[in-house]
Amino acid sequence: MRKVKIHITLKEGVLDPQGKAVQHSLKSLEYNNVHDVRVGKYMEVLVDDKEDLEAEIDKMCDQLLANPVIENYTYTIEEAG
Amino acid sequence: MRKVKIHITLKEGVLDPQGKAVQHSLKSLEYNNVHDVRVGKYMEVLVDDKEDLEAEIDKMCDQLLANPVIENYTYTIEEAG
Repeated sequence: MRKVKIHITLKEGVLDPQGKAVQHSLKSLEYNNVHDVRVGKYMEVLVDDKEDLEAEIDKMCDQLLANPVIENYTYTIEEAG
Repeated sequence: MRKVKIHITLKEGVLDPQGKAVQHSLKSLEYNNVHDVRVGKYMEVLVDDKEDLEAEIDKMCDQLLANPVIENYTYTIEEAG
């Protein structure tokens, strides 16, 4: 069994209204040293190990988990306890 | 300037309907080796460096970014280019 940790982030240059909202809220709370906030997704997926696991994870991300037009994804594969 | 990478995840035992929905969708797409999916948030926050930066990040997370009742958070602080 493997635990795949996937990070999905908006591509550089894509507007991030959620990040801007968080940034604005932090400012209202007097955190004045915050210059930028980008919000992404983080997923932990528990899968059976198999040959070509990386190819399968790539396919999952492209097909369902991320929107390849506006998002990048990276992942790491770990042994699940 | 520092880039703070924050991971916010649901605590163990807290139901994750979004994760279950993703898991179900993966199953519909014939990924039959997926046993569990947990969905969390990932944020990159660009802040000025200061003394007690960690204490400030903890406070931001407790106050706004995470819901400490049902979520855990972890973060790393990196030099921003």
